[in-house]
Amino acid sequence: MTTEQLVAQIRKKKSFLCIGLDVDLNKIPKHLLDTEDPIFEFNKAIIDATHKLCVAYKPNIAFYEAYGIDGWKSLKKTIEYLNANHPEIFTIADAKRGDIGNTASMYAKAFFEDLAFDSITVAPYMGRDSVEPFLAFPNKHTILLALTSNAGAFDFQTKNLEDKALYKQVIETSKSYANSENLMYVVGATKAEYFKEIRKLIPNAFLLVPGVGAQGGSLKEVCHYGLASNIGLLINSSRGIIYASNGTDFAEIAAQKAMELKNEMQEFL
Amino acid sequence: MTTEQLVAQIRKKKSFLCIGLDVDLNKIPKHLLDTEDPIFEFNKAIIDATHKLCVAYKPNIAFYEAYGIDGWKSLKKTIEYLNANHPEIFTIADAKRGDIGNTASMYAKAFFEDLAFDSITVAPYMGRDSVEPFLAFPNKHTILLALTSNAGAFDFQTKNLEDKALYKQVIETSKSYANSENLMYVVGATKAEYFKEIRKLIPNAFLLVPGVGAQGGSLKEVCHYGLASNIGLLINSSRGIIYASNGTDFAEIAAQKAMELKNEMQEFL
Repeated sequence: MTTEQLVAQIRKKKSFLCIGLDVDLNKIPKHLLDTEDPIFEFNKAIIDATHKLCVAYKPNIAFYEAYGIDGWKSLKKTIEYLNANHPEIFTIADAKRGDIGNTASMYAKAFFEDLAFDSITVAPYMGRDSVEPFLAFPNKHTILLALTSNAGAFDFQTKNLEDKALYKQVIETSKSYANSENLMYVVGATKAEYFKEIRKLIPNAFLLVPGVGAQGGSLKEVCHYGLASNIGLLINSSRGIIYASNGTDFAEIAAQKAMELKNEMQEFL
Repeated sequence: MTTEQLVAQIRKKKSFLCIGLDVDLNKIPKHLLDTEDPIFEFNKAIIDATHKLCVAYKPNIAFYEAYGIDGWKSLKKTIEYLNANHPEIFTIADAKRGDIGNTASMYAKAFFEDLAFDSITVAPYMGRDSVEPFLAFPNKHTILLALTSNAGAFDFQTKNLEDKALYKQVIETSKSYANSENLMYVVGATKAEYFKEIRKLIPNAFLLVPGVGAQGGSLKEVCHYGLASNIGLLINSSRGIIYASNGTDFAEIAAQKAMELKNEMQEFL
């Protein structure tokens, strides 16, 4: 998917909501556990109920790997269902990979070709040759971890690397990578005050923003500092939507929660 | 496996060789492609031929994920084969994961419980709460990326984070993490001059060292600066051993190459 197609979808739906599909068998409604593939059935119901309210889905790969081969089957069915029925949706493999060149190419192949995701999250620690193999895929997007939403972000990311915070160095350096037009960035909503600084470095790049809701981030502040002329924001919510109810009405309640966020977003468009 | 058991194995075998099982279907001998599970058959033959010469095997997970569900089946069969037949071998999931707390726990569960690896490689960018969930597993080891062997390592790792190279900050900070006795570190052999500095910070921690051979690192230099009283080194070789031949003699030739490295190591023990 091109960035233009993503922006057009946002304008049409008046939403820049991304829904995280972090499926934990201990948290989903009990009645689904009797089905052949509870994870897929859960995702399918959530997608059917919410696909008009959001523009992206983001399965966190850890939740699938935790179930081994069955988990991979559920992940594959989920992405195939999305690509077959909702090709306008932007799909994000939240995998946070990062490895040397030939290995990075294998990950890119796994997520862009075998699973046919539109994008993948990538960790920057190993530098240029760990990122460029992902960037080489046309119309696929590499979402680099810049400033994450967790407490550990302050261990290194906000400290100065040669007189500039590490997360800023990551953003600046990544702009020189081959095919950097395919880059997006993870920026946690819990640090809204940083958005202003980040927009000075990358005025229009898309930012994937976790941490609104459950982790305490404010949508209003993020929009205030983060919105770009092409919108440039994808706001992710996972638990706040998909686990809002664990009864048989879970998909309906998920849609209500997604609608609430979409309505809040609409004000800023 | 405890660190003491790993050290005992090294002393007994007079080897601290780790063999990387990075299986690429384009590189393995053609005659294996007719078998039901070529990746597992390749690994099994390499393991059968080399297990007395090395103390660890390290599948890089990217190479398995690239083949989707079939790849995961091959990985599972490989680790089960190792655990059933060679329980003395130290197993490393080279996965380079790193994510927020609850997600890191899912990865830990996937690799330490479902797949029953002894250790996993983890990226430090997201800090404390992305690492500690792995450290919570007793007698499992978390191998933190410190100084990697690729060109991109110079993008960030060797630059100063508040007056100290980022890789040193990563090592120092990680020493304060809960259960830090379960930490090991990735340190690339291509940067042997750094080992001296690293040993000042962590005199006895185990270092997983990629980059000897194919990537140009010198075993002699690594041992000179890196050997600790408990040895504290695992030298990894992947392509230089497993792809030394792609004929029907591949396992035999792999054993020869492993033996050459083991003999070089023996001098330093």
